Amino acid sequence: MAGCCAVLAAFLFEYDTPRIVLIRSRKVGLMNRAVQLLILAYVIGWVFVWEKGYQETDSVVSSVTTKAKGVTVTNTSTLGFRVWDVADYVIPAQEENSLFIMTNMIITVNQTQGFCPELPDKTTVCKSDANCVAGSSGTHSNGIATGRCVLFNGTVKTCEVAAWCPVEDDSHVPKPAFLKAAENFTLLVKNNIWYPKFNFSKRNILPNITTTYLKSCTYDAVTDPFCPIFRLGKIVESAGHSFQDMAIEGGIMGIQINWDCNLDRTSSLCLPSYSFRRLDTRDVDHNVSPGYNFRFAKYYSHLTGAEHRTLIKAYGIRFDIIVFGKAGKFDIIPTMINVGSGLALLGVATVLCDVIVFYCMKKRYYYREKKYKYVEDYEQGLGGEMDQ
Amino acid sequence: MAGCCAVLAAFLFEYDTPRIVLIRSRKVGLMNRAVQLLILAYVIGWVFVWEKGYQETDSVVSSVTTKAKGVTVTNTSTLGFRVWDVADYVIPAQEENSLFIMTNMIITVNQTQGFCPELPDKTTVCKSDANCVAGSSGTHSNGIATGRCVLFNGTVKTCEVAAWCPVEDDSHVPKPAFLKAAENFTLLVKNNIWYPKFNFSKRNILPNITTTYLKSCTYDAVTDPFCPIFRLGKIVESAGHSFQDMAIEGGIMGIQINWDCNLDRTSSLCLPSYSFRRLDTRDVDHNVSPGYNFRFAKYYSHLTGAEHRTLIKAYGIRFDIIVFGKAGKFDIIPTMINVGSGLALLGVATVLCDVIVFYCMKKRYYYREKKYKYVEDYEQGLGGEMDQ
Amino acid sequence: MAGCCAVLAAFLFEYDTPRIVLIRSRKVGLMNRAVQLLILAYVIGWVFVWEKGYQETDSVVSSVTTKAKGVTVTNTSTLGFRVWDVADYVIPAQEENSLFIMTNMIITVNQTQGFCPELPDKTTVCKSDANCVAGSSGTHSNGIATGRCVLFNGTVKTCEVAAWCPVEDDSHVPKPAFLKAAENFTLLVKNNIWYPKFNFSKRNILPNITTTYLKSCTYDAVTDPFCPIFRLGKIVESAGHSFQDMAIEGGIMGIQINWDCNLDRTSSLCLPSYSFRRLDTRDVDHNVSPGYNFRFAKYYSHLTGAEHRTLIKAYGIRFDIIVFGKAGKFDIIPTMINVGSGLALLGVATVLCDVIVFYCMKKRYYYREKKYKYVEDYEQGLGGEMDQ
Repeated sequence: MAGCCAVLAAFLFEYDTPRIVLIRSRKVGLMNRAVQLLILAYVIGWVFVWEKGYQETDSVVSSVTTKAKGVTVTNTSTLGFRVWDVADYVIPAQEENSLFIMTNMIITVNQTQGFCPELPDKTTVCKSDANCVAGSSGTHSNGIATGRCVLFNGTVKTCEVAAWCPVEDDSHVPKPAFLKAAENFTLLVKNNIWYPKFNFSKRNILPNITTTYLKSCTYDAVTDPFCPIFRLGKIVESAGHSFQDMAIEGGIMGIQINWDCNLDRTSSLCLPSYSFRRLDTRDVDHNVSPGYNFRFAKYYSHLTGAEHRTLIKAYGIRFDIIVFGKAGKFDIIPTMINVGSGLALLGVATVLCDVIVFYCMKKRYYYREKKYKYVEDYEQGLGGEMDQ
Repeated sequence: MAGCCAVLAAFLFEYDTPRIVLIRSRKVGLMNRAVQLLILAYVIGWVFVWEKGYQETDSVVSSVTTKAKGVTVTNTSTLGFRVWDVADYVIPAQEENSLFIMTNMIITVNQTQGFCPELPDKTTVCKSDANCVAGSSGTHSNGIATGRCVLFNGTVKTCEVAAWCPVEDDSHVPKPAFLKAAENFTLLVKNNIWYPKFNFSKRNILPNITTTYLKSCTYDAVTDPFCPIFRLGKIVESAGHSFQDMAIEGGIMGIQINWDCNLDRTSSLCLPSYSFRRLDTRDVDHNVSPGYNFRFAKYYSHLTGAEHRTLIKAYGIRFDIIVFGKAGKFDIIPTMINVGSGLALLGVATVLCDVIVFYCMKKRYYYREKKYKYVEDYEQGLGGEMDQ
Repeated sequence: MAGCCAVLAAFLFEYDTPRIVLIRSRKVGLMNRAVQLLILAYVIGWVFVWEKGYQETDSVVSSVTTKAKGVTVTNTSTLGFRVWDVADYVIPAQEENSLFIMTNMIITVNQTQGFCPELPDKTTVCKSDANCVAGSSGTHSNGIATGRCVLFNGTVKTCEVAAWCPVEDDSHVPKPAFLKAAENFTLLVKNNIWYPKFNFSKRNILPNITTTYLKSCTYDAVTDPFCPIFRLGKIVESAGHSFQDMAIEGGIMGIQINWDCNLDRTSSLCLPSYSFRRLDTRDVDHNVSPGYNFRFAKYYSHLTGAEHRTLIKAYGIRFDIIVFGKAGKFDIIPTMINVGSGLALLGVATVLCDVIVFYCMKKRYYYREKKYKYVEDYEQGLGGEMDQ
């Protein structure tokens, strides 16, 4: 018990600090300070100032709504004079983080369930029924083969299929794009972001923006960088592509909103930054179904109960709104981790200088003698001990 | 070779440990231990216990399905007595992480392609054809101007447009909301989460919940915190808004599911926690298109081939299901990083006490003499060396 | 001023290095080196080689498009002989990261607004009007009760509801699935990824893949691991489920694309890896609305203005494309943090050996005497100082 108390007292009331050799040498002293300075500059400059190593970071949680505006007219032999408004060209009417604007289309009107010849291609052209296998269906078939070989037009015979007839002929995509006027349509993007860790939320319609401004502005990287209304043509141009080219076969445009925020500063400096990138690759060498398109149908019913549909292969541009960003705020944990690592690195300065002083310098044996005390493992070695 | 062996032997068989001054002083000893204790308490308490610095973390991967239930009736002059069920008010029928419930609408029935006067506003009211520019189309236009000025009603003349006629009049939003009964509709949210790094998956319908309970329960933060069925009215209320107000112009509600899991403990403690937040901002000062709405149309065709449509401007609440969370599990890497930093910080105690002992205490010169050995750069300095 | 200069000179031109006891002992020396080796092996081996602690990491930003292909025919008494193509079974026509393929359905044709008896169940079966509460509507009701009790069929009476009539009878799900042939449909997934921090982008159609290959290939984990065209049946099988079972009540399949990339190596080694997981849980014990289904309607209008609709309860498989992954690239910050922590850990070797040498070894008192110098707090203690 008494021994235990003595140990505790020794533990509490004793202070141990390493014994130090102070070498008075300009060369070594300056070198040591220079190395320490470099490490300190790195720790403070790079880790703390540049990379903000003293901050806790959080990823953005975001909600996006979009609204397209614009009307255009087309005049074709199939459809006649026709007006197109938002309800016609935005499909589906609403999505979460994206918006599809139809720019081109292949329309097949008045399709009914029935039997009709396939489109001629190398697998469907036939000479007689023997060339057609009943019940078969290829990857690009419009229906199920009946096994009969029928006239497609005056000269060509193709296998007959059970399908929505007449089958769609998508071999020729309209050029220029059917709704080429979509270039001037506008897109309003409303984005609300939230950093859950810091309970910080903000939206891309900034507090200092007036309704009047919002009613008339259009985004421009230089003049109107915070206007959330985008001209479709400009979005595609900013990404380095041609809208009229893209409109023909469709494509996907990323509208990237970057919210990099330093929450140690005032929240009014946390601003969205927009950038645009084409997300589908136009690589002519190995492309299946280039661009972006999908098929949908409008279904109609006669009083007689017979159903018919209008099939539309819609080519267009899908605008994906991609919101990303990181917010940083001072936090004790990463600060301490970085301070700890920095201190450990400062120790490297001593190691480095030790190597130079005790291995490379002329007077190394003299210095070593000062730093080291040799203790032999055997007690008779006491005499051999080189004390200073 | 022999020299090399000697160096290797010295390297392997020598153990170097710093020489220590043990200062027997109550003041200094206690201070040193106190500082060490503080640092230790910080490292253990804050980093390890509070922030779980010993854990590797992973972000959640989630899949969500939703299902709305509820029927209501309306009785208006335009539409007569009408029943509304899920297929009528959920648009589109399915989405990935969100669900739109129509609560209000402006319906324009029997629109056909044609020519008709625009809605009167400051840009469309005209006195003669001279006021209307053929082919022009403003941001809020319903069509393309034909250049004629025609009677809108008995007194007002507006520019004629080629459009779906008659044009939609959305100047008055119905108050109260058309489908105000949506407040009592319910929403079932099924959520399956996965932490890829730990290959841990769970769903929000907990294993101890019975089918009977699920058939009758409604979420309540206090009494039924794990029931995945939400009354729409309650969601909006929990976020501090009024459902009936929100139903008029629409809005976006975030249903946040937080899965913060400590996977070092049993998986049954990894539970979802629901919270609700309004994601669109009701800021009356600078708001373009407040609330949430979009337009869609139902297309009809006559036997004669003439197409007409019913245009619906749907106001409603979009419920975005936002799943987030972090799972933590013991991992050697972050533990070691934090232990390393902690040890480095312990060294700070010695530095701090050294400063006090050797610079501030009365007996500092006496102590310094014990800690430091001065070595001059020149050999004749040997005599000047203050050895102890 | 002069004193200040002296202090500065002392600071700059003095080099302090700890004084070291070198113990020449095979046992202690070897132990020390072994512990250091272990720590070094851990820092280098585990942190740097295995966990790539020298890398900065970034999470993936991704864009996905999907395209389904396939045609099938059905022959039922309700619908007759009917062909189903993409526009019929993909609902909605396009989504951002997912695709729904209808595999089964309950179709209720020619519904009109009106009054009709409810489906008989324990809450709707009635004997007289007294059993039916006018205006009431349960969770599973198809409409609003009128308060009348009417004949459902020859024997059963149920409460009458204002609803789309006749009401849907979804008590029997067709078995086998209506569109069971969907097993052979194919799904093309185009995925474009981006690591913003490293400005690195890639797509899942690899540069060395030819168009010819893409036109004919089907994904197989072993033979065609980079073909982005999936047979639906194979996806479900790979996840360990039966497509035909899943097709009946629907479900959700996750197509996981993992892009784990080491950007320190050539970008051609950054490859997608596909895996499949069923995301909804088939847990028979506590399941509300098992599988995956939703209702939608096609609306038709007669010349007379009367609207009728076809209600479809669509069961099917939703394919969620989940893209995740981390890219790593050498960066000085995490390297330094880990080096710093590693160095601090090396210090642990000395602490550990010190404990053994100065507390456990037989000659501990002899060694202690060499390492420690005791300094008393009082000046008369000078004599008691045990110098070496």
